[in-house]
Parts: sequence; structure tokens; C-alpha cells
Amino acid sequence: MSAEIICVGTELLLGDILNRNAQFLAIELAKLGIPHYYQTVVGDNPQRLYQVIETAVNRANILIFTGGLGPTPDDLTCETIANFFGAPLIERPEIIEDITNKYAKRGRTMTPSNRKQALIPQGAEILPNPMGTAPGIIWEPRQGISIFTFPGVPGEMHGMWRETAIPYLKKQGWGKDIIHSRTLRFWGIAESALAEKVASYLSLSNPTVAPYSSKGEVKLRVSAKATSEAEAEKLIQPVEKQLQDIAGVSYYGSDSDSLASVVGDLLRNAKQTLSVAESCTGGGLGQMLTEISGSSDYFWGGIIAYDNSVKEKVLGINPDDLKEFGAVSATVAEQMAIGVKERLGTTWGISITGVAGPNGGTAAKPVGLVYIGLAGPERLVESFEYQFGATRGRTLIRHLSACNALNSLRQKLLH
Amino acid sequence: MSAEIICVGTELLLGDILNRNAQFLAIELAKLGIPHYYQTVVGDNPQRLYQVIETAVNRANILIFTGGLGPTPDDLTCETIANFFGAPLIERPEIIEDITNKYAKRGRTMTPSNRKQALIPQGAEILPNPMGTAPGIIWEPRQGISIFTFPGVPGEMHGMWRETAIPYLKKQGWGKDIIHSRTLRFWGIAESALAEKVASYLSLSNPTVAPYSSKGEVKLRVSAKATSEAEAEKLIQPVEKQLQDIAGVSYYGSDSDSLASVVGDLLRNAKQTLSVAESCTGGGLGQMLTEISGSSDYFWGGIIAYDNSVKEKVLGINPDDLKEFGAVSATVAEQMAIGVKERLGTTWGISITGVAGPNGGTAAKPVGLVYIGLAGPERLVESFEYQFGATRGRTLIRHLSACNALNSLRQKLLH
Repeated sequence: MSAEIICVGTELLLGDILNRNAQFLAIELAKLGIPHYYQTVVGDNPQRLYQVIETAVNRANILIFTGGLGPTPDDLTCETIANFFGAPLIERPEIIEDITNKYAKRGRTMTPSNRKQALIPQGAEILPNPMGTAPGIIWEPRQGISIFTFPGVPGEMHGMWRETAIPYLKKQGWGKDIIHSRTLRFWGIAESALAEKVASYLSLSNPTVAPYSSKGEVKLRVSAKATSEAEAEKLIQPVEKQLQDIAGVSYYGSDSDSLASVVGDLLRNAKQTLSVAESCTGGGLGQMLTEISGSSDYFWGGIIAYDNSVKEKVLGINPDDLKEFGAVSATVAEQMAIGVKERLGTTWGISITGVAGPNGGTAAKPVGLVYIGLAGPERLVESFEYQFGATRGRTLIRHLSACNALNSLRQKLLH
Repeated sequence: MSAEIICVGTELLLGDILNRNAQFLAIELAKLGIPHYYQTVVGDNPQRLYQVIETAVNRANILIFTGGLGPTPDDLTCETIANFFGAPLIERPEIIEDITNKYAKRGRTMTPSNRKQALIPQGAEILPNPMGTAPGIIWEPRQGISIFTFPGVPGEMHGMWRETAIPYLKKQGWGKDIIHSRTLRFWGIAESALAEKVASYLSLSNPTVAPYSSKGEVKLRVSAKATSEAEAEKLIQPVEKQLQDIAGVSYYGSDSDSLASVVGDLLRNAKQTLSVAESCTGGGLGQMLTEISGSSDYFWGGIIAYDNSVKEKVLGINPDDLKEFGAVSATVAEQMAIGVKERLGTTWGISITGVAGPNGGTAAKPVGLVYIGLAGPERLVESFEYQFGATRGRTLIRHLSACNALNSLRQKLLH
């Protein structure tokens, strides 16, 4: 028994998009212990897709398709599969109803072309799509062959996989030996430095420990193979604890934690509130904080002071200081933090002012220079200077600025 | 004549890495006008790789392999290819010499296992690897079949592709015909609705027109095959113009344009300025606007009024209206837009207030209900109600809110 992942979409052949769906499914199949030996990408072309199915049924039992379920004429995955196995397509009224309702909720009416999405092979089960209009199918067209189809949209595909496909596969007996992982998250330490600190753990076999890093964050993935999640946890937890102790304050959370959620929990527990004053991040810090549902418990809001006139008029920055030190300076960062804290009446105020680039850099104030200001209880006022370097690019410089601002507050709240 | 990309590596089947090599090669093949209809991923397993080659030679003429060229025993790409075409492996002294020199430069001596990398099929040319130790091959094992092998390391593969493979393929006559594309971007129309409007174009052969959609945006990709970019443009531009006319105002830009960049250009040309008042997006609209370098020309800043106290104190929302209509209402949206416009002294003010969820929804104000307020010149004040539906999720609801706010302003600025 083995699976094959078949991703359908001309945009993959043109290189328009990265095949993240194949990676997602590969990881999920590994977790369930389902072997998978081949991945195939084919365009929106029924003849070629037909041949791909022909090849796949001769070397795999579980065929997992992504893409080609949309309402447009070039979305042909379901039709081609039905055609290959010689099954007629049946219009399923419950799908029509579901699409109609979803459109109604969005104040739209279903178009004739959506009817196409309600056609699924005779004998197939509907694989519900809670988010989008395109449902998938689960189908055993012949003995020993299982078909799963998913839309190409990752968000929709992930939900459908977790809510329907996993339970179905577990009922079939898969996932007895599972791989369970914990991702430990670190901020303010380089991957190489962390890897050296925990070097002896990187050669463990069960659990395994693997370092990753992206956009300034470093992660350690601790993965255990066991008969149950509980058994896996027994293997993971002691190692997890040791890794946390070794890393110290640079460890900030695990799995779905984010700097924003961790800071939020610390503020909620301390019954304290936060406001932000943003220049070069233009609202990115506020967005990060409010990405967390329930952030209204501690986050009151902020002032986006992109133009200096807003720094003066709304935040009350001293115009002479703006002239003397410039908008990108420790002094202005501190005044911004104080200004927003006082005007919004919160326990804490964080500010960010910097040169995100690519333009606007000078010898004295190069692209990547960012000041973070922090104002808190008992007249606490601090600022931090960062030199992210121009090569990181505007988007990453802004992201690193917001994350470091949150990390500065996190460290204060821990004391 | 067509190519197939074959990526070899168990790490791809485990989902440890994203298949960026396939995307790189897909883009490069398109640039050269080399059609490619299939991508295959297979593990470090000679039997399965053998079968993959068997399938590929029956449907493609140019087989491009990445991965499996390393010194370890599980690196078997080259010998499996040689085996399939019945050619002996020959040790090439120039490769031994090259590896020895590279190791010497790093103060290391070549290991016996590296000798393996010097074995290439009889009759194959060496595809030099300036960076790493593993060379690739260029080989025509039989009439009409070309083989290229590259290491899996992207950096090495890219260099080898550019320095050796591209010139070789151009000498073979490729790159005369190139594929050049334009992506047209639309907002405020469903993919299915747009596809119906432009249905007759979706069956064109040169240029081709293909619809895509993601996160509320719909795209039409117009791809032309021609001898030069200029020739391709001649094919694309008339179709592009017709598609724009059919779509009307829902067309907003092309290629690297974004709603934020298009709104920014309109504001800059009109010498007008913008400020934002954000509740449920918490800064996301400001971030979107400031992601554009140079946005300081027209974007002055904003007020993140997440807590009602900020709506009252900083934006000057009437407390009675907050009580009577609630923070999520057309009235409050309009007052927020006016408030930020007046306080920051800009031409325009946009506001967003809504229920992003997953919590906080009621029967009267369900998750996904969002009001956008717009205040502009000559006392213009408007608001727009959106029902995104709870199923879209917090992140997408916030994204759609910010994009629709930009789109509302865009439409006003067009008049």
C-alpha cells in the first residue's frame, strides 16, 4: 500500500507558484505512516492527466489529487478521474445548496459555471470544503484504489485534509504508528549559535531534533515516533525541557505560539494594556498583535505616524528634536512610545521608527537602521537600536522591526 | 519536443524541503520556450527511478534531473540513468582533479567516496559545477533524447543551468521562441463571473488566457509564444485591452501592481493624501499601503482604534452613537473616516470596523460583517457594508477588509 500525490495545474508547470501542497501532503502522509514514493505535477490538460492516472494506478493505491476543481472550463480533475474509471458524473443537490448558501452569505448569487462543481462521480463521497465552493471527493472506484481530490487553494485543502481525510484514513487503519512533533520557537539568537548550543541533541534518533530558521526566527523541531500522541509526548517532553533550559530567554514559545500571542498572554496575566506608535512599519506591529483573536483584552490601538506632521500633531513629538535628531533616532523613538502610551492611556507603549528602504538611506542613517522605543510603568522609558542591513529588503526589515519590538516587551514582561 | 523535470530525493517525499528546484526549472524552461508537461518527484531508490525514466522517455525528449549526485551511497541518479540506457560508467580524471583541487582549497583531502562522483556514462559530456564537488552531465544516450543532471543544491544547480545548460540548449535552437506573459488583476468580481464574461478568450491558443484566483483577487494570465518579448507583446496587448474593456472597473492593474500601489499612483497623480482609521484590521491597511516604497508621498498615517476608548478619545467618535449603533456600524465607520481625515489633515480618510472573529459575532452582527467608511473632498462621506462570512477565517476576513477598503477608494479616485 502506498500513496501518490498528483498536483494538477498549469501554473505549476509555468513556475508561477511553488508546490507547497505537495510538501504539506508529504508531511501529513509521513505522520500517518503512509508510504509515498512518487509525486507528479501535470497541467490542466485532460489527456495528459488521464495518462498520469494510468501510471499512478499501476504503482500506488491511494491517489491524492490537488487542483483543477474550480468552476472554470480548464478545471477538469474530477471529470477526468470519472472518465478514467468509467463512472458517470452526477449532480449532487447538496453541493448546489452549499454553494448557493455560501454565495448568499457573501451577497452574491451562484453562477451557472458553479454547477460544474456539483458534478461528482457516481459512487463517490463528497469531501466537504468548509471554506470554499469547490468540494473534493473520496472514492473507491475499484477494489484497492482510493481517490482523494482537493482544491489547489492551500487554506481550503488543509482544512479538508484535517477534518475529513485524516479521520477516513485512520478508520482504514493508518496512523497507528504516528509521528508527533513539537516546534520550539526562539527569537534573538542565530540558528548557528543555537545549533552549537544544542549540538548533542541534533544526533538523537527518537525524538529527532532539527533546526530551522526563517525571517529572523529560529525553530527546533522535536519529532517522536510512537504508537500514540501520549507516548510520543513522553519522548518529547524531557528533551523539550532541556532544550528550553539551554536556550534560556531566547526561547519564547512552541507550536502555534507567536511573539504576539506570547506577549499577549503576558499582558493579560499582568492585567496590563498596550498601544503602539509606528512609523516605518506603518501598522504592521498592530496587525501582528491583532492577528490574535482576543487581543482586545490588552491591545487598545495605536498611531501610525508615517509622516512627521503626524508625529508632531498626533503623538506630540517635539519639532526641535525631530529637526535635531531626525525622525529615525532614539530620542524620537522614546517620545513616540511615551506619546502613544499617554494619549491612549495604556500601561505600555511601543514605538518603531526606521529606514525600511530601499530608498531614503544616508551614510549616517543607512537602510536597515531601526529604533524601537518602549515606555512602561513607573516612568520606564528605553530605546533599542537595530542595524538590519539594506540587503534584507524592505519587507523583511519591517517584519524584523515588529518582531524585535514585541521581543523587547516580552523580555521586560518576564522580569 | 518537450521536457520533463525529474527531482530525485527522499527528503522531498518526506516533505523536509519545498521543491524550489522544480519551480526554478519550470520558469527557465518557459523562458526558453521549451514546453514541459510533467514534473516527477521520486526518492533515492534505483528501481523506482528506473521506472520513472522509462515513463519519461515515452512522453518527453529532454529529461532534466536534480538531486542524487552526491558522494553518499544513496546518491544513484547518474548510475541509474547509465544503467537504463545500457552505458558503462567511466571514471573521468578531470573530475577527480577538480574535486581534489576544491578540497585542497578548503584544506581538506578528497575522500574515497568522492571518486564515485567522477563516474559518468560513456559518451556523456561533463556539466561543470563551479561551486560544489558534484558535476552534472549532458548526454544524448539515443537519437532525440537529451539528459541533463544537476545536484539538488539550488545554488549549485542555478549556476550550472545558467553557465552551461542554457548556452547548450540555445545552440540546439531553443530560446528562439519565448513565452512571455502578462497577469491582469481584478478586484470585486468572482472568478466564475469573470470567466463567463471572457469565456471566448479562454480557448485562445496564442496568446492563451487562463484565470486564477486567490484571497479575493482574480487574475487572468495572458501568455504568448513568440520569437521575442516585443513580438509576444504584439500578441498580448490587443487581447489585454479587450479583456480590460470587458471587465470594466473590476480590472485594477497588471503584473506587479497591487491595490495599494494602484491607489498610491492615483493619489500621487492627484496630489492628494490619505490617512486610515482601523479597528478590526488593527493596522493591516496601513501596512499594506506602506509596503509600497515611496508611499510617504501620499500616505500620512493613521489611528488604530481597536478599543472603543480610542475611537472616542483619539478619533472623536460620538459615545452615544457607539452605544446606539455599536462600533461595527455604518455610522461609526463614517465618523472614523471623518475623524482620521480631520485629525491628520489629509485629503482622504478610510476606515474599517468589523467582526473578524472567530469570537464576538452575534445574530445581528455576525462574524465577517465589516463596514468601510470613506471621507473625502467636498464633504464626501460614504460607507460600505460587507458580509464576508465566518467561514473565511479571521486572517482572510481582515485581508479582504483592507483590500476592499483600497478598492473603494480606487473606484472613487477613478471618477
